[in-house]
Amino acid sequence: MQHRVRRQAALKAAKVAGADALVVTHLPDVRWLTGFTGSSGAVALGRSGAALFTDGRYTTQARAEAAGIRVVIGKGAPGAQAAVWLAERGAKKAGFDAVNTTVAALDGMRKALATKLAAGQRRSFFAPTNGVVARLREVKDADEIVKMRRAAALGCRLFEGVLTNLSAGETEAEIALAMEIEARRAGAEAMSFETIVASGKRSALPHGRASKAKLPHRGFVTLDFGVLLDGYCSDMTRTVHLGRATTREWDVYHSVLEAQQAGVSAVMPGARCGDVDEAARSVLRKAKLEKWFTHSTGHGVGLAKQEQVLEAGMVVTIEPGVYLPGEFGVRIEDMVLVTEKGHEVLTKASSKAWIEL
Amino acid sequence: MQHRVRRQAALKAAKVAGADALVVTHLPDVRWLTGFTGSSGAVALGRSGAALFTDGRYTTQARAEAAGIRVVIGKGAPGAQAAVWLAERGAKKAGFDAVNTTVAALDGMRKALATKLAAGQRRSFFAPTNGVVARLREVKDADEIVKMRRAAALGCRLFEGVLTNLSAGETEAEIALAMEIEARRAGAEAMSFETIVASGKRSALPHGRASKAKLPHRGFVTLDFGVLLDGYCSDMTRTVHLGRATTREWDVYHSVLEAQQAGVSAVMPGARCGDVDEAARSVLRKAKLEKWFTHSTGHGVGLAKQEQVLEAGMVVTIEPGVYLPGEFGVRIEDMVLVTEKGHEVLTKASSKAWIEL
Repeated sequence: MQHRVRRQAALKAAKVAGADALVVTHLPDVRWLTGFTGSSGAVALGRSGAALFTDGRYTTQARAEAAGIRVVIGKGAPGAQAAVWLAERGAKKAGFDAVNTTVAALDGMRKALATKLAAGQRRSFFAPTNGVVARLREVKDADEIVKMRRAAALGCRLFEGVLTNLSAGETEAEIALAMEIEARRAGAEAMSFETIVASGKRSALPHGRASKAKLPHRGFVTLDFGVLLDGYCSDMTRTVHLGRATTREWDVYHSVLEAQQAGVSAVMPGARCGDVDEAARSVLRKAKLEKWFTHSTGHGVGLAKQEQVLEAGMVVTIEPGVYLPGEFGVRIEDMVLVTEKGHEVLTKASSKAWIEL
Repeated sequence: MQHRVRRQAALKAAKVAGADALVVTHLPDVRWLTGFTGSSGAVALGRSGAALFTDGRYTTQARAEAAGIRVVIGKGAPGAQAAVWLAERGAKKAGFDAVNTTVAALDGMRKALATKLAAGQRRSFFAPTNGVVARLREVKDADEIVKMRRAAALGCRLFEGVLTNLSAGETEAEIALAMEIEARRAGAEAMSFETIVASGKRSALPHGRASKAKLPHRGFVTLDFGVLLDGYCSDMTRTVHLGRATTREWDVYHSVLEAQQAGVSAVMPGARCGDVDEAARSVLRKAKLEKWFTHSTGHGVGLAKQEQVLEAGMVVTIEPGVYLPGEFGVRIEDMVLVTEKGHEVLTKASSKAWIEL
């Protein structure tokens, strides 16, 4: 039972962090640990076992989705219920995720223990064990990889589909909307993030959310988008050119492409994220474009942290970009899975070769 | 300048709550206080004035959207920047919203003050002043009412439009998707919440998210949905019947309708929320249906709080429902604005009269 294995690993990680129990309230973590997808829930993990807490709206759904774990239907905040349940079963120190717990929620959990523990015990009962579950989630298992491949494949289909819409006069917002409608039709729950469609001079904005600007007759269009499919996100970027390109545009595109491919090639188990970043960055340095590469090479498993070492099962993005203010920009991004032998590009179905429309 | 007036009111409310400054990090509150719509920002309000903090991605956007307030482009968490800015200008106690601030974010704000304040001052610098801005936002001004009317009107159009899609064999999810696509085409940023389409026996679920279930030849369909348009949400529910209804179905529908109308009629300045609730509930009590009315009559300005007194400018929902497990359910919901003279139903464009398709 996959969820049970995950719960055991989470409790073990909490113990390493100095807690003998764990209260999990961040809903994506609750889902990962139990399978439950409701909008209100918490998981308690302790020596005495595990339980999922939710409310009466989810009685049927929780029992159906979260097999193999005790389901408790209660009143009040699920996190507070989980804390009380653990305290009643002798837990001494419960880890919680300070990055995803509000001050008021923590206060509520503390108050719920008022009749269960003495004031001193209560004060020391909760310990921030941030990232305990997040770090476990970085290494994907076989089921998750299947889902991420599917999400990535849908992203690629959206890109192929939208190419026919890319013509002068269409607004960026219309392009984004067409992609979003297609994504929902194909079964996506939502987009992973606000779709970026940045055309012409706006392609020089690293965060060019789709605006009311019209696509130009001549210039780059950068599309950065992803879908949420079955709980897993895709993320990819392609930059295409409308009309005839200048030599300068062609050259910059191919420098970014070369950098991106060098970054992808450097992805393998044991590689440091700093090495991957340097593989991409050095290509742009040689092309004298490095100063216009203003962000990190990718994200995923904290790829911003140079010392992070990649392990099989992690998924990262490789997305160098060059942004020439007032002129144009180019970014190319793939999702890359670290495999035992090296890597697998999940967004490989969409070619990165130069496209001129 | 509307935003300036709001900021003055917020600072005044913080002072009443015992703080001489306010750090606002909840993005809807930041938008309400400044007009800024970016994904990263915080507002500092103190004796020495006000400032908006964001990062380099939003330099142009922040200056364009947030007229009349100092914009500071910085590094690190905007909330921490705001706290430092206030401390440097002599603030002694800064209110913050514990309901929307994570434990880690508060910790970050405290740490940012390490070189600015002594440890003792630092510990007492932040004070939870929850709801200071939220309570001000409950009473809408004229501009906001215009936007809420528009959002409500779009909701009504979606309902009228989707009626033609409601036929046996269509899935609930397809119905929801058609509404969402139409909403986006009409300019909505998103739906206010996950669209509820609950048909047949599923109409007895108060939270029947659109599922893969097919609409039946005979039975109720409850549609509960809303759009986010120009930053403001709509929310409405209609229940229609497919095929010929039984007398029981017709009777329950009309009891709920009568209860809903009684609730709407009770909305006026000075009314207690408990009175509004009782106006709706007593109708269902007389019809011996009260035990199946399992939630509160509405939400909005904490309508769950019985003692809350309505004021002109507040917007509430009135949404009684009756849920007969395993049989069927009916809910009818309007958004209602409290006016000087009584009330105005914002979702009035969609009739609540019995619809049999």
